[in-house]
Amino acid sequence: MGRRYDTISFLSDLGIADEHVGVVKAIVRDMAPHAQVVDLTHGIASYDVRAGSLALARAIGYVPSGVVMAVVDAGERRAVAIEVADGEGVVIGPDNGLLASAISMAGGSGRAVILDNLEFQLASPGAIVASRDVFAPVAAHLCNGVDLAELGTLVDADELLPGVVPLPRDVEGEGDGVHAEVLWIDHAGSCQLNIGLDDVSPWGVNEGTRLEITAGDVVRVAQRVARSGALGPGSIGFVVDGFGLLTLVLDRRSAADELGLATADQVSVRPLTEGQSGPGVSVPVSLSRPST
Amino acid sequence: MGRRYDTISFLSDLGIADEHVGVVKAIVRDMAPHAQVVDLTHGIASYDVRAGSLALARAIGYVPSGVVMAVVDAGERRAVAIEVADGEGVVIGPDNGLLASAISMAGGSGRAVILDNLEFQLASPGAIVASRDVFAPVAAHLCNGVDLAELGTLVDADELLPGVVPLPRDVEGEGDGVHAEVLWIDHAGSCQLNIGLDDVSPWGVNEGTRLEITAGDVVRVAQRVARSGALGPGSIGFVVDGFGLLTLVLDRRSAADELGLATADQVSVRPLTEGQSGPGVSVPVSLSRPST
Amino acid sequence: MGRRYDTISFLSDLGIADEHVGVVKAIVRDMAPHAQVVDLTHGIASYDVRAGSLALARAIGYVPSGVVMAVVDAGERRAVAIEVADGEGVVIGPDNGLLASAISMAGGSGRAVILDNLEFQLASPGAIVASRDVFAPVAAHLCNGVDLAELGTLVDADELLPGVVPLPRDVEGEGDGVHAEVLWIDHAGSCQLNIGLDDVSPWGVNEGTRLEITAGDVVRVAQRVARSGALGPGSIGFVVDGFGLLTLVLDRRSAADELGLATADQVSVRPLTEGQSGPGVSVPVSLSRPST
Repeated sequence: MGRRYDTISFLSDLGIADEHVGVVKAIVRDMAPHAQVVDLTHGIASYDVRAGSLALARAIGYVPSGVVMAVVDAGERRAVAIEVADGEGVVIGPDNGLLASAISMAGGSGRAVILDNLEFQLASPGAIVASRDVFAPVAAHLCNGVDLAELGTLVDADELLPGVVPLPRDVEGEGDGVHAEVLWIDHAGSCQLNIGLDDVSPWGVNEGTRLEITAGDVVRVAQRVARSGALGPGSIGFVVDGFGLLTLVLDRRSAADELGLATADQVSVRPLTEGQSGPGVSVPVSLSRPST
Repeated sequence: MGRRYDTISFLSDLGIADEHVGVVKAIVRDMAPHAQVVDLTHGIASYDVRAGSLALARAIGYVPSGVVMAVVDAGERRAVAIEVADGEGVVIGPDNGLLASAISMAGGSGRAVILDNLEFQLASPGAIVASRDVFAPVAAHLCNGVDLAELGTLVDADELLPGVVPLPRDVEGEGDGVHAEVLWIDHAGSCQLNIGLDDVSPWGVNEGTRLEITAGDVVRVAQRVARSGALGPGSIGFVVDGFGLLTLVLDRRSAADELGLATADQVSVRPLTEGQSGPGVSVPVSLSRPST
Repeated sequence: MGRRYDTISFLSDLGIADEHVGVVKAIVRDMAPHAQVVDLTHGIASYDVRAGSLALARAIGYVPSGVVMAVVDAGERRAVAIEVADGEGVVIGPDNGLLASAISMAGGSGRAVILDNLEFQLASPGAIVASRDVFAPVAAHLCNGVDLAELGTLVDADELLPGVVPLPRDVEGEGDGVHAEVLWIDHAGSCQLNIGLDDVSPWGVNEGTRLEITAGDVVRVAQRVARSGALGPGSIGFVVDGFGLLTLVLDRRSAADELGLATADQVSVRPLTEGQSGPGVSVPVSLSRPST
């Protein structure tokens, strides 16, 4: 027998409009009644492995030891289980890159298995429903102390599909500046970029520092603030968000709407040269709703 | 005292936009702190007893022993509790047909009571809120070992409103074929029909077999595949889904959108005669968005 | 050490589309594994302190003893914790008026602290995320028996921001009548007003009594019924709802849609004079969809 776990942290693209997530939790409750399921979110857009991967990476530092079950676009790929933190945790999910960033943040992978031992899975009356027939019973068996190696075929973790983490690039041939990407738009419409304070620290970025932001045809000036509430109405700012990343914000309005940004969009960030004021600051209204 | 339970599986049309579901769980936590509530789903459309009944029937085989609480369109009908599986479980809900399919799948009803003993319910400052004032406290009392018979008036289960399960009908006077109905459209837009492999087995349906599908004015050919990912772009297929039923699918697209289908819509299914190719296969685009 | 708690009732405007709520629950599970989180709702509209305050007030009478965590528009205000019911409960949230009504309904405040002791909070890699870095760990510490006074600076509860409860006003100079306000529109579209039976009892309001309802340009007659199912199609009625308040309803249709009402809208209510029939009753269709 392996180590027993008593928490399953669960993230998926299954939504909660129907009973899919509920059935997973019912199975866990039936098979491993001592285990508690913590729903991280089931609101990942269907098939959006990138969004699921980023949400899992944002959460992983806060989940308790135990099983982490991530089910996004799970239909077609083989299912895997990967040990992390010397067995403090086991991450299970499809082998489609979804798990890579979180595993990396949890210190890298230990043992890994392809979940191909049907003895620890449920039989289906028809097609296999991965969340119900594979992941739910496997999570329950792990909580009950079944060792990883019993659940399937051990593989080298290097054989699994890596995740893709978008890195910022320097702007070429135009002086200073960096091409960033919108990693995430949160429920308030704030736009998290894939750059940290380190990436812009050569420019001397302090509270009050202003940067030029180019998003498509929109050019605006954003001021660094400690929190969005410090901004005037309609002004764009940026904060170092709760994950240490530069994030474009407005006060009680959606920066994504204001700048016409979606996740994975490109944004160029440049230091403002001395005396430069940025036309967008003086006439924000004319730029705020680009015609579409 | 009766048997004690420690799980309440909870399905409703209450949504989670307001605190109705939360208050039910707060009451259970207060009255029966050892009991765990498993949310099956609260996304059933308001008043949609049919959809709630089908979701409950899909889930019932996976819920642990204990109380099953189903609250859909509960306002106007009397509340009932029905024992199943020799007392392994008790299903509670309104007497409006919601529970019938699930109870049948759980092996049929044992004792049944009308929940009319106010001693085990909460007093309301105004109108009775069924989920809060009736079902939550009754579920908690059941978990605490109160016997079913104490909760109200014993009745013959045959007196309760039966559920309606739509059965497929043979196409009349047109050779082979069957009129089916869309039971359920899942979050991916797949359309589950009320026919199993048995209903079409006389036609010899194997992987690769093609059937003619008529949905309103749309006539298409659907090929049997093991999973939707095996289909080419825009091609319609069908699988035997995770519940053993024929389900129309596309690869990463909504079959419901493609065919203009809603739940309870009629679909005719016919075997393709030899050499027949189905015009829909060659010009899928012209059929994919019927003008409305 | 203070008293230990084992339930955290959690209400927020965080939504469940991303992992914010899940991370709070993961932190609690990690720091206080014996504690159970009961989700009241996370569907409060962003920044809507009024709606959050009313939902919390509706729920508070049903939550078990323990911690009540309410997080609506938490970004900019200091965080507070307030003891209620002689220490049976502790309510934590932002000092923005959100908590006042619930605390009043729970019998008023005992000790209160500003949550400014960072020792009991989490460090952030960037900006503070109040739900994750302040409220989740504080709730967990309270469950573990940390005394309120250790969590920050004791203050007089009178120094905290009071809530605003809208009171009905008598109609001036037009005989009987009262100006009411829509407190809440529930998921069925019923419109809860801020008047109870006491406010209209001088008029002699029994089952069957009819009142004239003025909502903007729409004038309708509403009959008192025990439940909305007793109404004819398209007829407007009112019930004394599950909270003891007058609530405008239709049978299986949205009263809010029918009357064009939103939360916080004004509604005038008058007794019908003898023999008065109200044109709205005879021609409901012409009034039901005011052109907009």
